[in-house]
Amino acid sequence: MRAQVCCSSDLSFLMEAHDGLSAAIAERAGFKGLWASGLSIACSLGYRDANEASWSQVVDVVERIVDTSQLPVLVDGDGGFGNFNNARLLARKLRQRGAAGVALEDSCFPKTNSFIGDGHLLADIDEFSGRLRAVKDTVADDLILVARIEALIAGRGMDEAISRAHAYADAGADAILIHSRRSAADEILAFMRAWQNRLPVVIVPTKYYRTPVSAYRKAHISTVIWANHSMRAAIGAMRQICDRISAEETTASIEHSIATLDEVFELLDYNELASAEARYLHPDDIRQ
Amino acid sequence: MRAQVCCSSDLSFLMEAHDGLSAAIAERAGFKGLWASGLSIACSLGYRDANEASWSQVVDVVERIVDTSQLPVLVDGDGGFGNFNNARLLARKLRQRGAAGVALEDSCFPKTNSFIGDGHLLADIDEFSGRLRAVKDTVADDLILVARIEALIAGRGMDEAISRAHAYADAGADAILIHSRRSAADEILAFMRAWQNRLPVVIVPTKYYRTPVSAYRKAHISTVIWANHSMRAAIGAMRQICDRISAEETTASIEHSIATLDEVFELLDYNELASAEARYLHPDDIRQ
Amino acid sequence: MRAQVCCSSDLSFLMEAHDGLSAAIAERAGFKGLWASGLSIACSLGYRDANEASWSQVVDVVERIVDTSQLPVLVDGDGGFGNFNNARLLARKLRQRGAAGVALEDSCFPKTNSFIGDGHLLADIDEFSGRLRAVKDTVADDLILVARIEALIAGRGMDEAISRAHAYADAGADAILIHSRRSAADEILAFMRAWQNRLPVVIVPTKYYRTPVSAYRKAHISTVIWANHSMRAAIGAMRQICDRISAEETTASIEHSIATLDEVFELLDYNELASAEARYLHPDDIRQ
Amino acid sequence: MRAQVCCSSDLSFLMEAHDGLSAAIAERAGFKGLWASGLSIACSLGYRDANEASWSQVVDVVERIVDTSQLPVLVDGDGGFGNFNNARLLARKLRQRGAAGVALEDSCFPKTNSFIGDGHLLADIDEFSGRLRAVKDTVADDLILVARIEALIAGRGMDEAISRAHAYADAGADAILIHSRRSAADEILAFMRAWQNRLPVVIVPTKYYRTPVSAYRKAHISTVIWANHSMRAAIGAMRQICDRISAEETTASIEHSIATLDEVFELLDYNELASAEARYLHPDDIRQ
Repeated sequence: MRAQVCCSSDLSFLMEAHDGLSAAIAERAGFKGLWASGLSIACSLGYRDANEASWSQVVDVVERIVDTSQLPVLVDGDGGFGNFNNARLLARKLRQRGAAGVALEDSCFPKTNSFIGDGHLLADIDEFSGRLRAVKDTVADDLILVARIEALIAGRGMDEAISRAHAYADAGADAILIHSRRSAADEILAFMRAWQNRLPVVIVPTKYYRTPVSAYRKAHISTVIWANHSMRAAIGAMRQICDRISAEETTASIEHSIATLDEVFELLDYNELASAEARYLHPDDIRQ
Repeated sequence: MRAQVCCSSDLSFLMEAHDGLSAAIAERAGFKGLWASGLSIACSLGYRDANEASWSQVVDVVERIVDTSQLPVLVDGDGGFGNFNNARLLARKLRQRGAAGVALEDSCFPKTNSFIGDGHLLADIDEFSGRLRAVKDTVADDLILVARIEALIAGRGMDEAISRAHAYADAGADAILIHSRRSAADEILAFMRAWQNRLPVVIVPTKYYRTPVSAYRKAHISTVIWANHSMRAAIGAMRQICDRISAEETTASIEHSIATLDEVFELLDYNELASAEARYLHPDDIRQ
Repeated sequence: MRAQVCCSSDLSFLMEAHDGLSAAIAERAGFKGLWASGLSIACSLGYRDANEASWSQVVDVVERIVDTSQLPVLVDGDGGFGNFNNARLLARKLRQRGAAGVALEDSCFPKTNSFIGDGHLLADIDEFSGRLRAVKDTVADDLILVARIEALIAGRGMDEAISRAHAYADAGADAILIHSRRSAADEILAFMRAWQNRLPVVIVPTKYYRTPVSAYRKAHISTVIWANHSMRAAIGAMRQICDRISAEETTASIEHSIATLDEVFELLDYNELASAEARYLHPDDIRQ
Repeated sequence: MRAQVCCSSDLSFLMEAHDGLSAAIAERAGFKGLWASGLSIACSLGYRDANEASWSQVVDVVERIVDTSQLPVLVDGDGGFGNFNNARLLARKLRQRGAAGVALEDSCFPKTNSFIGDGHLLADIDEFSGRLRAVKDTVADDLILVARIEALIAGRGMDEAISRAHAYADAGADAILIHSRRSAADEILAFMRAWQNRLPVVIVPTKYYRTPVSAYRKAHISTVIWANHSMRAAIGAMRQICDRISAEETTASIEHSIATLDEVFELLDYNELASAEARYLHPDDIRQ
């Protein structure tokens, strides 16, 4: 199961989750894997995507995501929350909580979201490779290790991106995540041509969303991450409903447009609880 | 500020929040207070509303809600997570994390959601009054104490509800939350007539949503809680977006219908971080 | 490894641990297994042994205990923190954090420490058996399930204790913990004669500490738990050192009587960190 | 109360605490304030003193320390767990949990314990001053801010230490902690002569423990921290008891040398619980 995350030969898709609820929803929609997004988890917690959430708070959210679905979860581990020692500790904890993989990016601590500002600082290649080696030596094959390259985000060019990819492959990464914030996929496709698929490649088409998926299949990309769309959908809907309820002082007109309580109970498997009560609870304590 | 929660003479409204993000959204929509809903928090965590989440996990979520908005937060404390000792510990921790109030219901531990099944078990009046007294003696006026009556939910009738309300007022409650799951507000309005407003009354019109708010104003109800609508809006939207992305293998067609990243950044106040970087960060470390 | 906890034919010993540090120390002393004591963990956290600590706080402490030693850990799960549903959730989480087993006692929630007061309330046999069945169905053979009988503590007599033991064996327990607070082991030995070793038996000779271990071997007891002695040793020592430093306004006279910093560093394996820094850290970042 | 920590004109003493239990013990011994030691907390958790524990895990331990005693607590905040933004978030959380002050050191993240190795890396003065300014602007007078100087530890000399002290005073520190790992207090006393008491000074005589306290009074030092002695006392005692129990297979011979259970119950105030049960519990539920 775990080996399939980020490393399949067919193009596969990971849907963002930021809590147990969004994980359950993505699973029902038929996705085969989840992306525990750093940005989305931070938003959900009310933090900024700048390593405000502690590594252990992120691990706790990942635990809820893992526990609420049966899907393999690839975790956005940012830069590993410090040096090699912090990174391997994070990896050990993610393995323990049942994650399938972790993506580590070559940024410094604390990080800056890839879509904010310019001049992102990149980690030294050797230093970051040390983080990857430490993680690999710690979790071996129990956790897929994805090395995320921020060179294109930082405006450092394709040669830098490719040489980092090779260094990270040498350091033991199982897959490469190449990130771009251009509105077209040209950088990504150029990377694929130069990379020659030495390791499977993961992409995050948040900005270049217009490119059809066929282009990724043709380029032999392994995995596409829909990185923050559940959270953004939730924001839009919550904002709209809050605005209307605030203005109208009633929920009568929005009741039909939101999930019913029965859907909520179905989603979180309240039926299992009812049947377990029948099986395990003392008859006197069972609600009729 | 705190005194205004649940105790104003004008009808006021509390909007449900289940994480930092939903709190920020409710605040922007103009609500003056938040309801940290037990059901919604459980759902968000992937738990059932049956005291699966530990009291400290709930407190941690409340902390994120409080920290992400400036609004007073009334916390759904279920039955207090045990006896009087657990209840007063919960209250102490909620006060510490900055909550404005706590609602305790006269249910047994572990609880069952009010909208599920029949035959809910009610706590003994004296025992529950002991929980209320212990909380009041512990947090005094630092935390509004709302006593929630489940007698109507449990089918125990109006006399029982009223006599419980008086007992809980005697025990030190600052307000009464009378809960009903009928589709019309008749029980609620009958309660108001019998109660004679000895203490302010809070209601949760999840099931009887068609009743116009004017009826509550006329009945001198103090506070209306919109108890789970942000969460239900988020579920509907996440489900729809997940289904479409799963089916279409692209986000191109849904991109316009979800919040933009810029809206996300605005909501969580990334601008404050940027200006703080300019003020506190060493010039060499500032991204250009 | 796990199967050896509480179920060996030779008498084995579990040493109490209440945090990572005490776990590391017990391991160095040669113990083959640990008892994550509810009383000691509560004390360490500054809570009373009355289910003040939430189940998730206890799980977090267990994680530190498991991570800091290589030993199998039997966890004092009190009564399971609620009904069958809370108990199986606890068991699932303990398994995830790497515990080897859990002991559940037939008490009500919240519990009272076995050594305090009289008239402890016992759970109904069927209801508690439901908790055991739910846990066993959830974690199967991944987690040893020890059923702890409080009947003798509650003054309910030997027949009650034996009939509970049989019911709990029928419900799927892997071992029985029979608890007594008499200052002699007579109750325990009487239990062993009546029980005929249907399942392995675990004892906690906190009060009847004078009985020689040979008596337990002869009675075919499986496991002895030294349940709180590290914590009590730590209290004595900390109290003495605090009193002296407070009185003398210097540490000069006590310096020789406490562990050195080098011992501290050895205990927590700082050498591993130093050698890992040499292996993974960029040369520029290594301290000379 | 808070203002008295680290800023009194009379020499005062802070005793290390690393959990609720050690806090309760220090309070009983008559200390007037506590030092929530980073090293000791890490040890207790089974972590190394290298920022392995996350900032939120440290905050949770501080909460237990604060809740278990009435004393003001000065928290060892290491370098603030990142940049100015992490530091001010830490400070906000420590204030929320009831800490009286925080000490921030001019080290980089992740930190290295001051007593391990040589060549500790110091933070840039301006960058660290930014951290201090950010904290001060955030918590103002609600939290004492102690700036800890590692220049002597890093072998950078007295001029560097003094110029850092002035920079940190300019940045808003309320007190200076000057650290030394020499076995005599000569560096400390030289610092005091040069510093001229512009701000109160805090010292940590872990290594130079032979210097009599009169020397500190004469030098107008404000506060002495006994930084890790409870933890080291606990280690010594737990090790000794574990070794003996392991060797002797009985607790009979050590029973008299450790705290009794009654002492444990007294320390954590079980009497308060018993009297609260009499006050708040339903008579039927009270143990006789």
